[in-house]
This record gives sequence, C-alpha cells and structure tokens, in this order.
Amino acid sequence: MSAEAPRPTLADYPHRAPLQTRWMDNDAYGHVNNVVYYSYFDTVINAWLIGEGGLDIGGGPVIGLCVESHCQYLAPATYPQALEAGLRVAHLGRSSVRYEVGIFQAGALCAHGYFVHVFVDRTSRRPAELPGKLRACLERLRPTPQAPTSPTPS
Amino acid sequence: MSAEAPRPTLADYPHRAPLQTRWMDNDAYGHVNNVVYYSYFDTVINAWLIGEGGLDIGGGPVIGLCVESHCQYLAPATYPQALEAGLRVAHLGRSSVRYEVGIFQAGALCAHGYFVHVFVDRTSRRPAELPGKLRACLERLRPTPQAPTSPTPS
Amino acid sequence: MSAEAPRPTLADYPHRAPLQTRWMDNDAYGHVNNVVYYSYFDTVINAWLIGEGGLDIGGGPVIGLCVESHCQYLAPATYPQALEAGLRVAHLGRSSVRYEVGIFQAGALCAHGYFVHVFVDRTSRRPAELPGKLRACLERLRPTPQAPTSPTPS
Amino acid sequence: MSAEAPRPTLADYPHRAPLQTRWMDNDAYGHVNNVVYYSYFDTVINAWLIGEGGLDIGGGPVIGLCVESHCQYLAPATYPQALEAGLRVAHLGRSSVRYEVGIFQAGALCAHGYFVHVFVDRTSRRPAELPGKLRACLERLRPTPQAPTSPTPS
Repeated sequence: MSAEAPRPTLADYPHRAPLQTRWMDNDAYGHVNNVVYYSYFDTVINAWLIGEGGLDIGGGPVIGLCVESHCQYLAPATYPQALEAGLRVAHLGRSSVRYEVGIFQAGALCAHGYFVHVFVDRTSRRPAELPGKLRACLERLRPTPQAPTSPTPS
Repeated sequence: MSAEAPRPTLADYPHRAPLQTRWMDNDAYGHVNNVVYYSYFDTVINAWLIGEGGLDIGGGPVIGLCVESHCQYLAPATYPQALEAGLRVAHLGRSSVRYEVGIFQAGALCAHGYFVHVFVDRTSRRPAELPGKLRACLERLRPTPQAPTSPTPS
Repeated sequence: MSAEAPRPTLADYPHRAPLQTRWMDNDAYGHVNNVVYYSYFDTVINAWLIGEGGLDIGGGPVIGLCVESHCQYLAPATYPQALEAGLRVAHLGRSSVRYEVGIFQAGALCAHGYFVHVFVDRTSRRPAELPGKLRACLERLRPTPQAPTSPTPS
Repeated sequence: MSAEAPRPTLADYPHRAPLQTRWMDNDAYGHVNNVVYYSYFDTVINAWLIGEGGLDIGGGPVIGLCVESHCQYLAPATYPQALEAGLRVAHLGRSSVRYEVGIFQAGALCAHGYFVHVFVDRTSRRPAELPGKLRACLERLRPTPQAPTSPTPS
C-alpha cells in the first residue's frame, strides 16, 4: 500500500509515548502478535484524548468509535522489550479523525498504520461534532509542515 | 491446595459449554497462556447469567464483580483445540456466589478453579441482594447430591 | 477505502466458521473492541491452515507471518452474541497470501478486512515457497468466478 | 482466604515495577477486567526472570510453567491509570517457586495474589532443578525478615 513511501521515523510524530510489552503479547512464534499492535494504537490514542482533550470514557456525551484501522508490520518486537509509539493526525474532519501511529523499538520502526475515529453521541451513537477541547488537542498532533514555503493544504 | 482431592470430571458440573481457543491464546511456550483460562471462566459464567438469569450487563441495576479467583493447571491445552467448560455453584449467599469451573480437552481435565462474584448495585457498587431470576439460575448449578442419604448441608 | 464497493455477504466466502465472543471482548463502550476482530481473523485463518493445509505451528519448517492487515467496522457486535466468519483468498503468490475475512452476526456484516501472510522459513525467517498442501488448501478459498461462462469448479 | 491478614503495602515487596494499563483492559463495567491482573503477574515475574536471572524464553533449556494462581480484588483500577506491581518470593523449592504479587494504584492496593512456577526441561516438560542464576535472582526476592536482630541484608 504505502510500501514505496519513505518509512517514518519517531521525529515524524508530534507525540511520543513509551509502551510496555506483556508476556502474553508474544504468540506461538515468539514475537508480539500482530493483533496486539492495534491494542497499542488504541492505548496511545485514547490516553492522549483523555489526558489532553478531556475525553470522559465513562460518562462524557461524545465518544470515539473506530471505523477503520490498518497496520503494516516491518520488524518483529518481543516481550520484554520496551517500545515507543509515535502519534500524529493525518486528517481532522468535523466528527472524524484519522490518526497515524508508528511503533518503534530502540528507534527502529516495527510497525505503522492508521486508525480512524468517528465521534458519536454516547446514547444515539450518531456522529457528533468534535467538542472544542478534543479538537484543540488533535490540532496539536498535525505534523509540522516541513517545507518552509508550504501553506499546508493537507 | 486441593491437590489431594479427586479430580473433577465433566459429569461433576451441571452445566457444560463448548469453548473455542484462539490463535493468540497460545503464548511463547506454544500452549494456552495461564491467564486465558480466567477469560474462559468469565465467559462461561456470564453467558449463563445472561442467558438463564436475565443479567443485563449494559443497563441492569445489579452487576456481578469478581472479588477472588483461583486456578490450578494440570495439562496444557493448545489452539486450535476445542475445549469444554463445566460450571457449578459451590456456595450461594445473599449477594455472592462462588463458582467452580473445569476446563476439559477431549474429556481430560486441563485446569480447574473457582471464581467469586459479589453482586452490587451498578451505580453505588455496593453489595445488593441477588435478584430472584439470577438466584434461580444459580440454584440450578448446585451439584446434585451424590449420596442418597445425604441432606447436602454444604 | 472500499467504502463504495458492495458489502460482501456470507455467501461470498468459500469457507465459513462459527466464532465465540468472550466477556473481555467487550470494552468500556460495551461492544467488541476493534482490536479483537483481528484476533478473529488470525483464528479463522490459522485454523484453516492447520486443519486443511497441514500447517504445523509448533515444529513445521514454514510458518506464516502477518505483514499487513486492515479492517472496516460497520456495525457493533457484543458478547455473548455468536458470530460467524467468512474467509476467502484474494491473492495467492509464490510465498504470500492475501485473505479477506468478513465477520457476521445473524447474517449481518459487522466488519470485514484483509490480512496478508508471508510464508517464511521458521529459522531464517526468510520468505519460503508455499508447501504444496498449504497451497492446495488456499486454492480452495479463491472466490468462485462470477462470470457465467467459467467452468472453474473451485 | 487471606481476608483476615493485614493487607500488604508496596514496601512489603522487594521488587517494584511500573505497569501500564491498556484501553482494552477496561471491560464492559468500565474497569480493568479481573483476567488482566494475571497478565500483570505474568509480565512482572517473567521480566524479572529474564532481566535478572538470565531466563531465555526463546531457547533456554529450562522454562517456567504456571501450575497455580490466585488473586483477590480489593479496589478497581481503570485505564489510563498507571499502576505499580510489587513482587516477592514466598517459597523457593528445588524446581518450583511461589511468588506473591501486589498491584497498586497511587500506593493503594488494588489486587494481590500468588503464582506458582514449576521449572521444567523445555523439551520433556519434566521438572528440572532451578539453574543457579535463576535461583540467585529469586533468593533476592524473599521478604526481609522483620525480626530486629536479623542481619540478613537480602
């Protein structure tokens, strides 16, 4: 898919966070199971939304549901290695967000992918406009424009 | 603990249910991870409470919280083997229940343990009396007395 | 991605298999967590490879590693619902396979996605040609051509 | 079981380690699922064995298999809270070890339990004597005697 694109580095992600591996992350082939990377995605994204955006997962009026996700696996990680996640926002709409996440071990990319949240009303589960504080914390995760002359159309 | 007690057989459990294993249940040693057996316990217990006792996990007034659990591991199970769970009630109090669960593969005991639920008010999380329909379905899981003369005081 | 394509139905998948949900599949929002669907993918794919293709996950010379996966989520599933998976092969190369998986609840599509295996030598972890028996079982998962003139019986 | 015993504090455990929670640790009741605590046990124990005792989970001649585990749940933990584990060795035999683990949130005990490893030959899976380096790292996890006259520096 994006096989030809240059591989991201940690510096390409505005937010970085450490990730612990767990014994049961390792599967029968002795490395972190492909499924578990999506759990890393979910964990780093929601921690940001809760800590920086005021998301109240237990009682808030608006919650984020995953509608699509994707991951490419480049190199294995293995418990008990410590990992690091990079997080950025590739697209920010009225009620949806597309995140990009990279998982690194000792600075080397293990896997990267994307994850799309649609924010919905907790009760009706219909799309809802992103509350201001959530939007603000997501704006901060847009990649910094790299070319000095670029007006960042994205 | 109960190492000297005779090992239970499937027939010792009033309720039996099939269990699927999953690829990621296998850990780095190539068998179902010890942690996963507790997930089997949780799954077979709550399926009974929901299906037979009317437990409404999303909105009901009373929910069951686990306060203690235990498991002994006797023989490994491995994905993709099919397993079978046996479930019985060892003690039924005013607001708490002690279940005993056995996990079998092809009729042989892999692991067995217990799991204690305290039923609480969903909001206050304080102990609540077991609703009648839940109690009734749990009464049906008490082991049948084996000795004809025994009044089964338990 | 494939948002405009017609949604697959169970009949579009040559292999179907029942899937159990587990208590802990439900996350804080009360439905099966997005991550868990990938575990369903892994489980139905490997069960096919083991049961039909002779894959020996514990000691065979060739193993399948996931290099890419993707899922779109259309409708929530919830423990203790029973689910059903549909599996087909979209592309079969010399050493790699692209599967497509659909997850259904009572015949309605909950989620669907793809999963790419590269088969590698267990020790060197370098790409290896698919053994004949594995290839044969994967050939049987290619979708039946829809053109009326094709005699390919699958 | 040990309900009457005084509750342990972090200081009662010779080894302490931080634990991350994950989004999917929270179950439908909005707190860390009972099953997940056993994953914390497994993770902190094996990290110690690997880092301090030279356990080679991928290829070493001796591995540790769990034969029994137990947990009491005292107070809920919730993602994204940070947790802390305390680990000590309650019994150290020729080929088996009984660990005690406490899980704390902001210094308060959430859950505690025990976990018994039997060390076995990787291939035959028969009990094997604990290698010296593993034994030495486990000796360091015995609780310091509380009698004031004891010079045992641990």
